[in-house]
Amino acid sequence: MKITASEIYKSIEMIRQKSPVVHNITNYVAMNNTANALLALGASPVMAHAEEEVEEMVNIASALVINIGTLSKPWIYSMLKALSQARKKSIPIILDPVGAGATSYRTQTSRELINSEPPTIIRGNASEIMALYDDKSKTKGVDSASSSDAAIDIAQKLCETHKCVICISGATDYIIGKEKIMKVKNGHPLMTKVTGLGCTASALCGAFAAVEKSAFAATVKAMAVMGIAGEMAADVAAGPGSLQTHFLDILYHLSERDISQRLKVED
Amino acid sequence: MKITASEIYKSIEMIRQKSPVVHNITNYVAMNNTANALLALGASPVMAHAEEEVEEMVNIASALVINIGTLSKPWIYSMLKALSQARKKSIPIILDPVGAGATSYRTQTSRELINSEPPTIIRGNASEIMALYDDKSKTKGVDSASSSDAAIDIAQKLCETHKCVICISGATDYIIGKEKIMKVKNGHPLMTKVTGLGCTASALCGAFAAVEKSAFAATVKAMAVMGIAGEMAADVAAGPGSLQTHFLDILYHLSERDISQRLKVED
Amino acid sequence: MKITASEIYKSIEMIRQKSPVVHNITNYVAMNNTANALLALGASPVMAHAEEEVEEMVNIASALVINIGTLSKPWIYSMLKALSQARKKSIPIILDPVGAGATSYRTQTSRELINSEPPTIIRGNASEIMALYDDKSKTKGVDSASSSDAAIDIAQKLCETHKCVICISGATDYIIGKEKIMKVKNGHPLMTKVTGLGCTASALCGAFAAVEKSAFAATVKAMAVMGIAGEMAADVAAGPGSLQTHFLDILYHLSERDISQRLKVED
Repeated sequence: MKITASEIYKSIEMIRQKSPVVHNITNYVAMNNTANALLALGASPVMAHAEEEVEEMVNIASALVINIGTLSKPWIYSMLKALSQARKKSIPIILDPVGAGATSYRTQTSRELINSEPPTIIRGNASEIMALYDDKSKTKGVDSASSSDAAIDIAQKLCETHKCVICISGATDYIIGKEKIMKVKNGHPLMTKVTGLGCTASALCGAFAAVEKSAFAATVKAMAVMGIAGEMAADVAAGPGSLQTHFLDILYHLSERDISQRLKVED
Repeated sequence: MKITASEIYKSIEMIRQKSPVVHNITNYVAMNNTANALLALGASPVMAHAEEEVEEMVNIASALVINIGTLSKPWIYSMLKALSQARKKSIPIILDPVGAGATSYRTQTSRELINSEPPTIIRGNASEIMALYDDKSKTKGVDSASSSDAAIDIAQKLCETHKCVICISGATDYIIGKEKIMKVKNGHPLMTKVTGLGCTASALCGAFAAVEKSAFAATVKAMAVMGIAGEMAADVAAGPGSLQTHFLDILYHLSERDISQRLKVED
Repeated sequence: MKITASEIYKSIEMIRQKSPVVHNITNYVAMNNTANALLALGASPVMAHAEEEVEEMVNIASALVINIGTLSKPWIYSMLKALSQARKKSIPIILDPVGAGATSYRTQTSRELINSEPPTIIRGNASEIMALYDDKSKTKGVDSASSSDAAIDIAQKLCETHKCVICISGATDYIIGKEKIMKVKNGHPLMTKVTGLGCTASALCGAFAAVEKSAFAATVKAMAVMGIAGEMAADVAAGPGSLQTHFLDILYHLSERDISQRLKVED
């Protein structure tokens, strides 16, 4: 399988043209960032978390993004309702299990969400993805050489069990689907000094999945666009403050040429 | 009626001098933006939503801005308490019915808020304003040629029923009062790519209404200032990220000359 | 006692090297700002407020920052749980009593938090600090010449009662410890036109206290860094919008030379 700059750009054009509604139930810290990134890309963000309206909002959305960054009980209840409705309407579901592994509340909630309705795409860093796997099985199943290998191993198991695409993000992003794996090597270390860029990546996965049949291709494209806009922003930024501003400006203007000059996708 | 650059600037000077406290019960996405815009204009924003304190906070405020962008039940309860207290203290109330029409929860909540205490000013886009009007009456009353005409027609009915000023914002903003209507043609399309600028407009209406007897004039002035600062920002911005930054810088320094050079207000 | 640029920079280097986890239970308005400022300084921010997880999050943190800016009942409950756990784990606790004095809910909550577990550091403006002192005693104890003197007088009483460091921030920041007081005269008036910079100062106190034995020295250093980065940002900013962006860029790159050229700390 190969994903070209031209194909990525075609998806961006579709997003800009169709302006798909991406419904986000996300954290307080990153709401503004992710709404702005979705707008800059060409999508239509909506943020709604009340149990009274999440189902109706899902009905007008083309993708649902669930992010557990600032979790609490009423939000979990709404996430479950939204997930169930998204599955009924067959729109793609993206889960960002922020902080899974850091507290048992986050780990358990992530697993509960996944077990209620398997997401189309799960995006997290290595430790978050590893935390999604049931502890008992983990002790039996995992004996990989490095933590990155261990995360990939677990991602493959999750992928098989839940029939979903897993993205392990980091300096290299690993996108893992059924019997396939791709690496995106775009991005810049300064991006780790800006809050909410991981959450933004998950939101962009939602926008791409909204216009793309293959969830695997959508994830690769979203992560490539994220990384390319991020490294272009880092090239001109004076620090993490201006990186965020440049990131949105660059995302808004991103051209096929920008992508083809920088794309680093590998099988 | 005529609203001049000089009159607009006089109101800005009053805001800068008096620093009126504007109490916002608003959404998570736009809180930071609107607080910063109010500060840049010269007002004193406060954000408080707990039922235990909203009345006391209203007591020290010169305007109350209610925005339903990320609604939930406890917030609605506090909005109702704050509205009632604002009416008792006779301070202007601004309502931004974000997403009315998109879900029945938002439509019903907007109507409930309006029926509990009629706001002084309601600001929304055409579809939000149209959603505020009772469905049954709508089927009888509306037969206008275009959706913009339909929205104006409904705004006039709302204005009559609730004795309030309605602002339908868009490429052209329509400000509708008792037997009068004005258009503000300032602004720039790039503003639609930044989240929370609509919410910011509502917050600025609060600041102007705090220093201005006429709610109609306050709304026209706020929308003109919003549009002028927005188009000045768009002129120098590289995209939606830097537009937001420039917008605040420009709002902070806005001069009478800036306004007189760009003001596009029509009867 | 003397605090030099070299000592301040040594603490920054420790923060950059250790990346201490700073757990924030803070307000919706400033969450994004404070997370970005902590990242720019070199710390690792986490935001978590659910009663189910705050204790576990405290366990992996090196400092706890409590900020009551957008208060409500479930958050207070979580703040109390987090405070108690932080005290058990002996990590520094920073309290920002935003708006104490403005409503009785904020005043009472601030006092309740302090009485449940005395914070290591309390940072607020003069009126917030004065509101923390019990009314009855205040009528007896305070007869100072100016409001600034009155605030210092009260801060000294609070310091004695609760064995904590008090920072009264303003054009001059007063840091008050047991039988000592220092002034930080860095900063710039434009900083008051950006929302959340006070909250950011409290969060930075958390980062410094995480790597520093003396809470007093940590507070002086945090306020000096805040003021220096703020005035350097104001020097190049076109207004409050760009100040925020520059502030983060400058904080990220802050050098010993920047500090020694600008440091204004007095006994």
